[in-house]
Amino acid sequence: MIKINEHYLKLKAGYLFPEIARRTAAFAQANPDARIIRLGIGDVTRPLPPAVIEAFHRGVDEMADKNTFRGYGPEQGYEFLIQAAIENEFKPRNIELETDEVFISDGTKCDTGNIQEIFGIDNTIAICDPVYPVYVDTNVMAGRTGPANDKGCYEGIVYLPCTPQNNFAPAPPNKPVDLIYLCYPNNPTGAVATKELLTKWINYALENRAIILYDAAYEAFITDESIPHSIYEIPRAKEVAIEFRSFSKSAGFTGTRCALTVVPKKLKAYTAAGEPVVVNPIWNRRQTTKFNGVSYPVQCAAAAVYTDQGKQQVRQLIDYYMENARIIRAGLTEAGYTHYGGINAPYVWCRTPDGLDSWQFFDKLLNEAHVVGTPGAGFGPAGEGFFRFSPFGDRSNIQTAVERIKKL
Amino acid sequence: MIKINEHYLKLKAGYLFPEIARRTAAFAQANPDARIIRLGIGDVTRPLPPAVIEAFHRGVDEMADKNTFRGYGPEQGYEFLIQAAIENEFKPRNIELETDEVFISDGTKCDTGNIQEIFGIDNTIAICDPVYPVYVDTNVMAGRTGPANDKGCYEGIVYLPCTPQNNFAPAPPNKPVDLIYLCYPNNPTGAVATKELLTKWINYALENRAIILYDAAYEAFITDESIPHSIYEIPRAKEVAIEFRSFSKSAGFTGTRCALTVVPKKLKAYTAAGEPVVVNPIWNRRQTTKFNGVSYPVQCAAAAVYTDQGKQQVRQLIDYYMENARIIRAGLTEAGYTHYGGINAPYVWCRTPDGLDSWQFFDKLLNEAHVVGTPGAGFGPAGEGFFRFSPFGDRSNIQTAVERIKKL
Repeated sequence: MIKINEHYLKLKAGYLFPEIARRTAAFAQANPDARIIRLGIGDVTRPLPPAVIEAFHRGVDEMADKNTFRGYGPEQGYEFLIQAAIENEFKPRNIELETDEVFISDGTKCDTGNIQEIFGIDNTIAICDPVYPVYVDTNVMAGRTGPANDKGCYEGIVYLPCTPQNNFAPAPPNKPVDLIYLCYPNNPTGAVATKELLTKWINYALENRAIILYDAAYEAFITDESIPHSIYEIPRAKEVAIEFRSFSKSAGFTGTRCALTVVPKKLKAYTAAGEPVVVNPIWNRRQTTKFNGVSYPVQCAAAAVYTDQGKQQVRQLIDYYMENARIIRAGLTEAGYTHYGGINAPYVWCRTPDGLDSWQFFDKLLNEAHVVGTPGAGFGPAGEGFFRFSPFGDRSNIQTAVERIKKL
Repeated sequence: MIKINEHYLKLKAGYLFPEIARRTAAFAQANPDARIIRLGIGDVTRPLPPAVIEAFHRGVDEMADKNTFRGYGPEQGYEFLIQAAIENEFKPRNIELETDEVFISDGTKCDTGNIQEIFGIDNTIAICDPVYPVYVDTNVMAGRTGPANDKGCYEGIVYLPCTPQNNFAPAPPNKPVDLIYLCYPNNPTGAVATKELLTKWINYALENRAIILYDAAYEAFITDESIPHSIYEIPRAKEVAIEFRSFSKSAGFTGTRCALTVVPKKLKAYTAAGEPVVVNPIWNRRQTTKFNGVSYPVQCAAAAVYTDQGKQQVRQLIDYYMENARIIRAGLTEAGYTHYGGINAPYVWCRTPDGLDSWQFFDKLLNEAHVVGTPGAGFGPAGEGFFRFSPFGDRSNIQTAVERIKKL
């Protein structure tokens, strides 16, 4: 008899964004004339930069000619893209990486979801709360947790509450954990981690022989020069950290799909007997066995992000969205809401008003302002009482949404 | 202390194709003047069909305009592609599918690798031998096996030897298993499954409450009208089978990346207590949590395969490769080799001559004929003494390779 993976049955409700989509669709069907503005899912709206489009077309044209056609590429990604990423993302910050330490993939969601596979089931996981749901759900599916309690907390996970008191950037716990998910600039709170805080985390990981999974998908939105873009700016981080980068939010690749993951060769995990195992070849084995590389024209498109034109055009995109974030922040301030983030990170994290819980505020905003946001509770129990606004919309929509919110 | 997933340490040697690449690169370096012909990895060489290229460009152009730009798409794939696949792949064979039973992905390698995650660890796996290594390796990684023995067989897996005696298409075992991997037309043996044989498998799965994972990546190469293209041509298959389809080999998408997987809503697995669980929403949860959909322009490109022009152009591609297979078969016959396959499937499966084992024959062929093939042993112990030739090369290369083999 074929047994299902019963760990899936522990998962609470639907994944957050499908649930938002469901409620929004139901409202739209009941109110066909309402002009709904979606600031919920953190999805970009500006077109791909011209330099990216040009390279994308060139990649497609190569597939049309038998002399330049590409079949299977390296599962790890093409060297031209890996080299460009190293030269432009890491070298300027004095981070030296070899090409076989960088893995190109079709998304940070996939990589942050899949990475846990290569670690043992009996590791203790530490996760910020609130958090991007993928980190939690993939560990539940793998069987690293018990069931969820009434608040939605899974047994066995060490939750690190992110609150205004700790600037939504918690310090390491005072007990040992094995695998730590950190995301800075943060989704959903818009918080950042200082060098000082990351140094504490690296020291903690070194002392406890833990590994940090560092999701830097939003690093391009940092404006304050003192904030690290990469965890490898911290000494010895290569011994204890894996870093995830994405083209999704910076260059508009949410529908195009490309990302990269750094697994330094200095990084070690251990057998139960305490024997060290170099992690890089294990991830390489995972990727070569279960993945077949990113579409070649997409990799051409991604590499164009690192050309002079590409860099300039991506900068304009980021500036556009950060101006949206500024407009949201200003509007929320004017409307009397307490809010955080939106300065070194795209997301604005807002306290729900009038004691409403975050799904109640979601429904109120949808019903009365026809604006879709993301309920904080969807990111974890400590997100209750908060609400996330995404600045990745069209300027005029953002302005209209802010005006409507002010009138609530 | 962070523990590695020790099941990875059970894996034998490198994954097959990287090992072939390594030996070939070493030979090429030592013999820079040798003109190596690669019939090893089953990778296509003809450019994408013009209709596909045109749609691909159109998709890219849509990404350049804010009015047509696409961000995150449905993780399951766009309806336009799912609908086209249902209309063209399944309806003509009287198979009715709903759109939410079809999942678009970036490859059958990914889907056949990932699908095992949604089933319990304590299921017994049955796998043909020889077999596409992904089926075995992903189950080893997940911990469904013990260590490998000297022959490379993992403890706990039920191997179904594929031999000339059973036409490389084994009947169900006479003991219960839970999860069965079948691939027809077969990689690597080029064998096919008759309706009669598949009916036996479906009946076996119904009786034993087992699930069949049916890899139909090569169905487009079937020439004999009596051979089923889909397992759903067999009555009641929807209750017990998942089917995988790919654009890789038919339309040349190995470097472009698109595939689809059918998980019928009638399909059930069970909890340990014997409670039935519908599998479709579990796979949907897996995909929505760990995957973010296929690149939009790639989905546009894939949909063009189903236009009139696209169909005709894909037909020409398949005919081209099947003529290559015919040339290989004819050459091997002339050279006195015993061989199988290459009629309803692209691959030609050849007995190694003179008592050579399959890696010895690989080295001989590489060193003396400068031809790269795939050693049968790389697909499993029962592949020892066999060798796979891929017809996915350029015609003149195939002809040259055959001439060289004849002179060996």
